Amino acid sequence: MNLRSVSVIGIGSTDFGRMDGESLVDMACAAANEAIADAGVPRQKIQAFYLGNFASGILVGQETLAPKVAYQLGLGSIPATKVEGACASAGIAIRHGVILVATGLADIVLVAGAEKMTSSTTAQNTAALAAAAEELEYNAGLTFAGAFGIWGNRHMHEFGTTRKQMALVSIKNKHNGIPNPRAQFRKEITLDDVLESRLVADPLRLYDCCPVSDGAASLVLCATDMAREYADKPVEIIGSGQATGFINIYEADSMVAFKATIEAARQAYDMAGLKPADIDVVELHDCFTMAEIIDSEDLGLFEKGQGGPAVEEGLTQVGGKIPINPSGGLLAKGHPVGATGCGQAFEVVRQLRGEHENQVSGAEIGLAHNLGATGAVSTVHIFKRS
Amino acid sequence: MNLRSVSVIGIGSTDFGRMDGESLVDMACAAANEAIADAGVPRQKIQAFYLGNFASGILVGQETLAPKVAYQLGLGSIPATKVEGACASAGIAIRHGVILVATGLADIVLVAGAEKMTSSTTAQNTAALAAAAEELEYNAGLTFAGAFGIWGNRHMHEFGTTRKQMALVSIKNKHNGIPNPRAQFRKEITLDDVLESRLVADPLRLYDCCPVSDGAASLVLCATDMAREYADKPVEIIGSGQATGFINIYEADSMVAFKATIEAARQAYDMAGLKPADIDVVELHDCFTMAEIIDSEDLGLFEKGQGGPAVEEGLTQVGGKIPINPSGGLLAKGHPVGATGCGQAFEVVRQLRGEHENQVSGAEIGLAHNLGATGAVSTVHIFKRS
Repeated sequence: MNLRSVSVIGIGSTDFGRMDGESLVDMACAAANEAIADAGVPRQKIQAFYLGNFASGILVGQETLAPKVAYQLGLGSIPATKVEGACASAGIAIRHGVILVATGLADIVLVAGAEKMTSSTTAQNTAALAAAAEELEYNAGLTFAGAFGIWGNRHMHEFGTTRKQMALVSIKNKHNGIPNPRAQFRKEITLDDVLESRLVADPLRLYDCCPVSDGAASLVLCATDMAREYADKPVEIIGSGQATGFINIYEADSMVAFKATIEAARQAYDMAGLKPADIDVVELHDCFTMAEIIDSEDLGLFEKGQGGPAVEEGLTQVGGKIPINPSGGLLAKGHPVGATGCGQAFEVVRQLRGEHENQVSGAEIGLAHNLGATGAVSTVHIFKRS
Repeated sequence: MNLRSVSVIGIGSTDFGRMDGESLVDMACAAANEAIADAGVPRQKIQAFYLGNFASGILVGQETLAPKVAYQLGLGSIPATKVEGACASAGIAIRHGVILVATGLADIVLVAGAEKMTSSTTAQNTAALAAAAEELEYNAGLTFAGAFGIWGNRHMHEFGTTRKQMALVSIKNKHNGIPNPRAQFRKEITLDDVLESRLVADPLRLYDCCPVSDGAASLVLCATDMAREYADKPVEIIGSGQATGFINIYEADSMVAFKATIEAARQAYDMAGLKPADIDVVELHDCFTMAEIIDSEDLGLFEKGQGGPAVEEGLTQVGGKIPINPSGGLLAKGHPVGATGCGQAFEVVRQLRGEHENQVSGAEIGLAHNLGATGAVSTVHIFKRS
């Protein structure tokens, strides 16, 4: 079948961080209302709504979330669906909006992601993170940081990736977050800060880990042939991929790569007719410093094993060969789990509009990579300036 | 665009009820494996997976649910997505499978619904049900039964619907459940049993309410032009609708109808090119006796206000004008919330194959209606014998 081209005509985001007094539904509505206003689209033109969210039931006792947000937004009787795939929930929401518009089932679709994490008890947050894990491994005591620590140690062992290279990811992303008003952390850190921070799960220290965050982000998607009715600078979505990986570590075929990312990226590159070298700016899923190194290899930006040296050589800085996470990424901007995928797309769209606070000069093609759980699910989207 | 015809080529279901020792993932896999075997389709031909589930996070501490089930099923790297819309979650899963096949994005898609409710504490179950409610109303003390009780009283007030007519819904559905080996309750009840059962929320008594259940059900969907490769008796899905209604009661424009059902039914009838009188058998969302009466009117099977007399006249019995819930419905078969929509489709497909334990003679067109929360979301699917 012939798929239609899809464009982003509006974007919105709350700040990421501790949003006291803002409910989950309120945050989702704030981001969506900003996206709708940015698009200048009358709400009765919106034909469907997808909401990415991970663990609202455990964290804030709310389900039936998409109809609640759609109702508060005044979207009428349109289908409103929550999609869940752990930390990749919002990437999945984008993909489903793309499917409806690309196939012609809808002309305009609203997508959003939202998560409220800082109002929960430690027990609730622990339960939410545990919910993403495979039961046997969680019961054996494996945490998220523990899993990524295992990947980290194996990557160091196989490729000689260094503790310093990992730290440089955090230093870069914290630096990138400084001009981003949406970022949770906005100050420089030093190598000593990282290396002397508290050990979380060897080799990962506190500054190797993303924070716990609240936040929401949203996009309005539209058939490209109608996009100029609404947007001066529509941004086309030219590639979309979603894949499932290994659920548990004890069966994974690699401890230095995420199969779901590799497959989702393959789908997105194939659809776009592009190769990794064509990408100008990347927002990828740096839930831990080692995740950024692995992701950058899985996305084909560097050869497997070369992600560490690439950071050390400055290739991933703004101004480098392939800037990664100029927004600050999850490490500095924050990681409201179910919102992150839409937050990444928000940042990439701002780059391709030439409006970003940490602008990559001349960026024409951008990529957003979302990873769920310990590699169980991934989405990749490729965006193009029009 | 031209949509392709979609058919059901395989169905599977666990028993509904108390499934001690069966985990949520195990139940979903059991139903899906049965559907895959029924279709006789090699698993590597399955191109996507949708799982409907309501509140696994609260009830059993599990999220990232679709990748976990897909992984255990051995489905490889295909996209695996959980969709959530309260009690209509599995209807939404079916709709998303239909979208992928109808648009040509996939030829074969697996869908399932699952919920594990009986292993939770009362506090967890209360929290799960509360999660579907609008916050203000829940905090004011309104429960699910309370909300449907309000609808019940209003329906009685406006149309003269009687307490006896409501009881007859329960008596009919409990009777229908007797030959169904999947049903949670399989014995006759009398009018006195209903009228003397414990008051839950006026006018609803215990036997007006569906039980708490575990269970899972699954369908394999396939492009109709390929369906005969796998199935002797493929069943076509000729209509699909999904709509959002009122989230809260204090703003609802009617206390005797569910807007989401009316809109979802309109979409499904329009797509199928059929009217209510063309339907031969219906599985609808009888979470409470009064819900069946209201649903039957919202689906256009009877004029508004005539649902009660229709039951009393026997029109909705097997052998009547339009048999409703020959499976036993939620009242007798059970209501594992996120599984129910697929469970209803399972029963309708068996009817249209002519294989049902409580067969409606000559049934050619069937309808499945799923309702989420207190009317926040609804799906309607129409099936046709091929």
